[in-house]
Amino acid sequence: MPQRLKLVVAYDGSPFAGWQSQTGGNTVQDYLERAFEGITGTKARIHGAGRTDAGVHALAQCAHIDVAENSLLAERWPFALNAALPPAIRVLRCRKVPETFHARFSAKGKVYRYRIWNDSFLPPLEVGRTWHVPAAMDRDQLMAAAKAFNGRHDFAAFAANRGRPEQNTVRTIEAVEVRTAGKRIEVDFSGDGFLYKMVRLMVGMIVRCGSGRAHPDEIAKRLADAAHAPTEQRFAAPAAGLFLVRVRY
Amino acid sequence: MPQRLKLVVAYDGSPFAGWQSQTGGNTVQDYLERAFEGITGTKARIHGAGRTDAGVHALAQCAHIDVAENSLLAERWPFALNAALPPAIRVLRCRKVPETFHARFSAKGKVYRYRIWNDSFLPPLEVGRTWHVPAAMDRDQLMAAAKAFNGRHDFAAFAANRGRPEQNTVRTIEAVEVRTAGKRIEVDFSGDGFLYKMVRLMVGMIVRCGSGRAHPDEIAKRLADAAHAPTEQRFAAPAAGLFLVRVRY
Repeated sequence: MPQRLKLVVAYDGSPFAGWQSQTGGNTVQDYLERAFEGITGTKARIHGAGRTDAGVHALAQCAHIDVAENSLLAERWPFALNAALPPAIRVLRCRKVPETFHARFSAKGKVYRYRIWNDSFLPPLEVGRTWHVPAAMDRDQLMAAAKAFNGRHDFAAFAANRGRPEQNTVRTIEAVEVRTAGKRIEVDFSGDGFLYKMVRLMVGMIVRCGSGRAHPDEIAKRLADAAHAPTEQRFAAPAAGLFLVRVRY
Repeated sequence: MPQRLKLVVAYDGSPFAGWQSQTGGNTVQDYLERAFEGITGTKARIHGAGRTDAGVHALAQCAHIDVAENSLLAERWPFALNAALPPAIRVLRCRKVPETFHARFSAKGKVYRYRIWNDSFLPPLEVGRTWHVPAAMDRDQLMAAAKAFNGRHDFAAFAANRGRPEQNTVRTIEAVEVRTAGKRIEVDFSGDGFLYKMVRLMVGMIVRCGSGRAHPDEIAKRLADAAHAPTEQRFAAPAAGLFLVRVRY
């Protein structure tokens, strides 16, 4: 009988081609699967709660994998895996879960954070982990725009692929929290699910509102009209400012 | 008549061989001097408030340089320089100062920060900017050790080169502040001056006290006895956790 393990994984997305396995093997999933294979001698598939794009970071991505029952104790896996992984990927925790647990399908929601630096110059230690927005921003407009995403909406206009017609693009944003401290702006989105590039497209819109190039009212219009043209991809905020904070089960 | 400029510079120390110019040219000083030369067409020397070792970061290093009076307005220099500098170095501010100002000799003091992560695994986004100390630490012992450095002492036992006999190794630590938040420990040192590797040697000692391998009383003994053997270099905390926070004038 295999046993199912739930892993909590953090990574610096900068050096990787995203989460999802691909040719070339420079993805977080590939590194994790190779680390497991190195320890167990067997190929196995690891399932993430969701994909993150190249350059997107994770404070606590979740994943599951099935391993032989006679393998390591769950609490030893982080030590064994981290010894084989690059420092840019750390398995923070591991525990045994029932076979009914699925990292993706059991997830009840996720929290994403987006970080912005709003000043002429980006501090060197923020490179690769913050969006540098030099343009002056109206914090009230920015706040109003962020709040406009709150609630249950059809987010088709804020997704990279509108998806096939039958695909459900309705999601609920349960909370949007904007924190500003000096030149730093952080926006946390808590939701039951996120479409492809949805956070980056929402943040792109929020920043356009903050800098006066769009009005927060436009957000409600786009959300109300499911047939609205999708937001232009060039308005997506860059990957480097995005953090998967946690997955809720 | 040349005019003297005071610059405030931030850098991520990871990719550089420290502040101080050297053969190979991969230092912060070299990058700054090349950026000035590219703009003015003239070689000039930039003087830092102090050297930082390879891997040490700066939130606000200070420096001065003399440029021709008919060159850029002081407030335009950061824009011109940053366009020529790598993102790991940013000139945050620049202003004209009297010729009597000297970045090093006019400095009244400095603040250094040292960052520690005290847990089994180092979060990926802390790599290169935190000392990873997995050993359990007694926070009271750590605090007592940090406080023991407070005040005016002969720090000869906490310097990398004891220096020539005539060199003055007396310094005043005006404040030591220890902040702990979960697994993170930060120690700020404010002082009128710091000897070579002094902060890293103090932090090495503080961590040895925290993990029970030394007793805080030993610090007072070493500080009281100017003839005490210097602390072994292998006990110096690594460069990556050290940040020059600011220079006081």
